[in-house]
Amino acid sequence: MAHLERFAVTYRMAATDEASARDMGDAICLEQTVEVPRTVVPAGLIADHIVGQLQSLLPSTPGHFDAGISYPVELVQGDFPNLLNVIFGNSSIKPGLRVMGVDLPQSVLAEYAGPRYGLAGLRHMLGVSSGPLLLAAIKPVGLGVEALADLCYRFALAGMDLIKDDHNLSNQAYAPFEPRVRACVAAVERANALTGRRCGFVPNITGSQAHLLERAQFAQREGAAAVMCAPALMGYDTLRQLSGSASFLLPILSHPAFAGANVVAGEAGFSHGFYFGTLQRLMGVDAVIFPNTGGRFGFSASDCQDIRAKAQGKLGSLRATCPTPGGGMLLDRVAAMQALYGTDVMYLMGGALLGDGRGLSAAVGELRASVGRRSDD
Amino acid sequence: MAHLERFAVTYRMAATDEASARDMGDAICLEQTVEVPRTVVPAGLIADHIVGQLQSLLPSTPGHFDAGISYPVELVQGDFPNLLNVIFGNSSIKPGLRVMGVDLPQSVLAEYAGPRYGLAGLRHMLGVSSGPLLLAAIKPVGLGVEALADLCYRFALAGMDLIKDDHNLSNQAYAPFEPRVRACVAAVERANALTGRRCGFVPNITGSQAHLLERAQFAQREGAAAVMCAPALMGYDTLRQLSGSASFLLPILSHPAFAGANVVAGEAGFSHGFYFGTLQRLMGVDAVIFPNTGGRFGFSASDCQDIRAKAQGKLGSLRATCPTPGGGMLLDRVAAMQALYGTDVMYLMGGALLGDGRGLSAAVGELRASVGRRSDD
Repeated sequence: MAHLERFAVTYRMAATDEASARDMGDAICLEQTVEVPRTVVPAGLIADHIVGQLQSLLPSTPGHFDAGISYPVELVQGDFPNLLNVIFGNSSIKPGLRVMGVDLPQSVLAEYAGPRYGLAGLRHMLGVSSGPLLLAAIKPVGLGVEALADLCYRFALAGMDLIKDDHNLSNQAYAPFEPRVRACVAAVERANALTGRRCGFVPNITGSQAHLLERAQFAQREGAAAVMCAPALMGYDTLRQLSGSASFLLPILSHPAFAGANVVAGEAGFSHGFYFGTLQRLMGVDAVIFPNTGGRFGFSASDCQDIRAKAQGKLGSLRATCPTPGGGMLLDRVAAMQALYGTDVMYLMGGALLGDGRGLSAAVGELRASVGRRSDD
Repeated sequence: MAHLERFAVTYRMAATDEASARDMGDAICLEQTVEVPRTVVPAGLIADHIVGQLQSLLPSTPGHFDAGISYPVELVQGDFPNLLNVIFGNSSIKPGLRVMGVDLPQSVLAEYAGPRYGLAGLRHMLGVSSGPLLLAAIKPVGLGVEALADLCYRFALAGMDLIKDDHNLSNQAYAPFEPRVRACVAAVERANALTGRRCGFVPNITGSQAHLLERAQFAQREGAAAVMCAPALMGYDTLRQLSGSASFLLPILSHPAFAGANVVAGEAGFSHGFYFGTLQRLMGVDAVIFPNTGGRFGFSASDCQDIRAKAQGKLGSLRATCPTPGGGMLLDRVAAMQALYGTDVMYLMGGALLGDGRGLSAAVGELRASVGRRSDD
């Protein structure tokens, strides 16, 4: 059966010694495939090929072992939810078990188109050839359409590249989706006419599944530059379907709302790199928003480094997803961020720019200068 | 503004003293609504009404405080993903923060139809007037259609009420969805013709979003009793839309695959009762599968008690979701399970019945007797 192809998942297991780690690994091999005791597994193909195979077991961080377990590709081919299910379906419920990463062969990767645009596509679209892209957020929820559109105008005039809805903006009566999109796109275009730049508006389409494609297509028709959606709320395959849709062609930004437990759960859940990197590329997300280190969330510099690496490193022929750190992005931390992320990145800033005592225009001007953006770009 | 209605969320916060707990609570009030520093919040409606309000702060378990925070209903009306987003969007990413429960006013609950059937509906459909319902699972993945259908036949003949696909069965070439559903429904019907009972087959429709409704409707057309779907993989609103669909009317069983981190994350994520109880009812799930205590997962008896209480306790006029504990349900533990769950429950057993040395029929017979099921019911 050497011709039967497999893919591999690395699990980090809380275990004090190798024997108990091996037991945990064996349990994963069964749980993620046949879900019966080994004594009941039918001999032949099922026992020899379908059951997960523990291929490596190594001590990792103190009190933990990393197990490499392989599964047959035909369990998951053609079906993204089922790929995720075999990676971490029932085993996600076991304490002390975390998915660190996956190794997918070309036969599986070939089914995933990945990001349509990624950072290079966004650069081309926005006419920004070098340096970090700059993403602003309009807020707070409760403002009316005019006030939000005015914020768009001022952010665009000041030199941001993309301006997105806060993720709490949905279709509330204060600023319903359709008039908000129309007004914000128009405001950005008015600013672009003055600056000569190609700033774009990014509405949040997270919301009832019944209206998702309709809102995406409305945004496209009305001239939005991209859309934002939260996969932990909407479903991972929902984003994959959207990113591969023939009738919707805009870039997609993903938002981490509701995703927290999947990564901050310590020994459970997923590594930052898998969840905000690999998974996003499989979904076809063009830019992934995640909490920056040092802000009001608890991500470490190495968590963010892991995200950057998995968002941009080799994954078959899938385009890179643009890392988009946000949250607590203060101007005096830009140098540290540049060291961490380099220039192939998009920075999300909202509250810090809105709250800058010198006014929004001066704050954006300093941001642009500090990240080394040319004045004509 | 006394007329403006609010809903409330209880958060458990890891905090050593009341002052730091209050700071965490204040941060949640902002993060879940306006997402800007308090100094930037516009005065008037937004500051007075839209920003979350810390309404209670009490010490709970050692090292933790429980904060009751209220939000205006108009932020979430008409939109399930946005309700979840306001409950725990960005704050889900902060460490040491867990959603314990929600208190939704009638104006919000009225938007949720809840389970169409619940336990009472399942009892009626299956002709089982009293005692726990019994759910079997066919597995392992890798068996062909005939072998799986034969398992259905044997489980139905032995006296199980519902027989579901293992959640690892999707549309693999070993046993593709459509022929599997046809053969399993037919096998159960052959057994019913002999027993006079109304056992039913429950296919797993978890899989590509593009085919979800199509598979649901195929199952309905072919005579399946219900369908099973995993919301953590497919999206919470996806299940809500399905449970409210005019063209799909079967009961829905939810499966916990991929959900683990949301509940086993210790101080992060959601209480067992919220995630496997309240949330499932809002989705319209008729029966919720979750790991039983004492099995191979780590749920405690009080975790399971919490699920039972939230699945069945009062939630507006929404029907109860049937608690369906599974995993490690050994026959010698039935008495303890009866004490924990009572009789308004469905027991999921798979591996233990398949692995019973006396054969499947004897094992199911003992199960029926031990839970007090009458021989004619």
